[in-house]
Amino acid sequence: MTRADRGPKNIILMIGDGMGISQISAGLYSNNNRLNLERFPVIGLHKSYSGDNLITDSAAGATAFSSGVKTYNGAIGVDMDTLPVTTILEMAEAAGMPTGLVATSSIVHATPASFYAHARYRKNYEEIAADLLHTDIDLFIGGGSKFFERREMDTLNLSDALRQGGSTVASFVDTDLKDLNVENARRVAYYSADSEPLPYSQGRDYLVDASKLAVEFLHVKDSSDLGFFLMIEGSQIDWGGHSNDSDYIISEMLEFDRAIGEVLNFAQRNGETLVIVTADHETGGYAIQNGSEMGRIDGAFTSDYHTADLIPVFAYGPGAERFAGIYENTAVFDKMKLLYGLK
Amino acid sequence: MTRADRGPKNIILMIGDGMGISQISAGLYSNNNRLNLERFPVIGLHKSYSGDNLITDSAAGATAFSSGVKTYNGAIGVDMDTLPVTTILEMAEAAGMPTGLVATSSIVHATPASFYAHARYRKNYEEIAADLLHTDIDLFIGGGSKFFERREMDTLNLSDALRQGGSTVASFVDTDLKDLNVENARRVAYYSADSEPLPYSQGRDYLVDASKLAVEFLHVKDSSDLGFFLMIEGSQIDWGGHSNDSDYIISEMLEFDRAIGEVLNFAQRNGETLVIVTADHETGGYAIQNGSEMGRIDGAFTSDYHTADLIPVFAYGPGAERFAGIYENTAVFDKMKLLYGLK
Repeated sequence: MTRADRGPKNIILMIGDGMGISQISAGLYSNNNRLNLERFPVIGLHKSYSGDNLITDSAAGATAFSSGVKTYNGAIGVDMDTLPVTTILEMAEAAGMPTGLVATSSIVHATPASFYAHARYRKNYEEIAADLLHTDIDLFIGGGSKFFERREMDTLNLSDALRQGGSTVASFVDTDLKDLNVENARRVAYYSADSEPLPYSQGRDYLVDASKLAVEFLHVKDSSDLGFFLMIEGSQIDWGGHSNDSDYIISEMLEFDRAIGEVLNFAQRNGETLVIVTADHETGGYAIQNGSEMGRIDGAFTSDYHTADLIPVFAYGPGAERFAGIYENTAVFDKMKLLYGLK
Repeated sequence: MTRADRGPKNIILMIGDGMGISQISAGLYSNNNRLNLERFPVIGLHKSYSGDNLITDSAAGATAFSSGVKTYNGAIGVDMDTLPVTTILEMAEAAGMPTGLVATSSIVHATPASFYAHARYRKNYEEIAADLLHTDIDLFIGGGSKFFERREMDTLNLSDALRQGGSTVASFVDTDLKDLNVENARRVAYYSADSEPLPYSQGRDYLVDASKLAVEFLHVKDSSDLGFFLMIEGSQIDWGGHSNDSDYIISEMLEFDRAIGEVLNFAQRNGETLVIVTADHETGGYAIQNGSEMGRIDGAFTSDYHTADLIPVFAYGPGAERFAGIYENTAVFDKMKLLYGLK
């Protein structure tokens, strides 16, 4: 199948980390029984297990999406033998397409990292940051400036290197994301935190604006009309699960859903954009307990780690119908690659 | 829309009571990573809440499917004002179609009862049993003979009345379901237990055979080619959740999935049958814990009651595409009615 057939031009993959069916349900019933997820005509379920564990972590989970391989927990863009695997972002870049990453974690955290880095272990943050310099990524927004600018493994200032590579580099220290002007930027790098960004409930609220900015920037940037690839992560739904904090889950879930709404608005106008929303795994064994009401969720948890639940996949736009049914998490990559017509 | 358009002739609604996403996942990973649910091309999610509670019970949940109304927990085929509502089974009968019910609970239990009875309270079992005599149901298989034959509210023997109405009446006492010959039967009533049937793990294993028998009987019975309606419930997945017993959930889930396989085989051969598989709600706040492996599930629970999870809907056959997306549980009724072309 070639792109011309009827595949999408642009693909926007949105990952709600730790967003299982209960997290979605809690968001829905905390939001007047409405979510932007209801706008998706196609739903599938993926099998989230990793190459070495029925319960995946975010590194193996994201590598399945980015590269189509089941790998070991902790692996970033490498296979079971720790060998690098080519990611959909790298393939898109090789095809000349603009690419971008947006996260509410640091940009070197497992999920975004798995789209550009190749590391044996997810916590090698400085090594992962250096890998970002080996890509032609056009935009990234996320935390973690310290891994670029105050490194322990070497004396490099990767932000300087990014500037030399043509990036407009800005950070939360000097520029609110709302004031970031990217109109004449060749590339964009924005640090939303020195390390990990705050929770939404503590004032971090850039995901909606960042998603909008990223989509518009990549769309304009795509002057050759090849299409773009963008991954957006609602990173902290997972952290709410790890904290067994229902309110944390719900506020992150609803911010993520608003970002989904903005992305869908673009996709509706654009007509050539496939939007895929899914999660890597469920976190917390979260459940909405008896006694809960619409707008007042009493949550409970079976653990502070991940579970093995099947994970919903929502798809909208050209090629969406391919995301129906039950399949392996790696099939998300396979389908994106097929729809892009990439080799 | 009329039936002629492209709706199904037959509809088989299969309800896994208490079968949330974790129950499905646990079944999948206990069965070599394979389920018949993977054969469904369309997946949706329904909102399970009832008319008076974010956490539904099985009575309100089944009444939503059977009659398209959100009612109070405990209500059997009646609305919020305790007024009877017409069920899809009654509508199908009025249209001259053969109908049937199969359950691994008693036939007067909340889920099957909601398709033929109209009772203010789900535990009025003798009243519910009497309602079965007011229908033209062609086949039922389930437990509860004592509510028909040894009644406290009156001295009626409803099995005699069933016989007078033309039913072949048999029970587990005299006839194993495998030996039940329905070839020349006008109607079929089979009691699988005096009260509630045993768990699968304790030797009750009729759901697959009963599903096959019911489908074939109704198909042959449909000599006017009007199509049939059949509801099949895997009742005890829910009871495994209430017992916080992971092995109980898994064995019931896998028996239900094998019944799904038989029903899908018929639907594939037949070509005019819509199969819908869903649940009323999730039970137990069940989760597959870290440390679990393929084939060895370590389950945990947040409660011994139901939760508010969105519930998967799987659809196969003509009209299946209408079951994609997110919708209210009552829409399952609306879609069935529309596809049947019923008034």
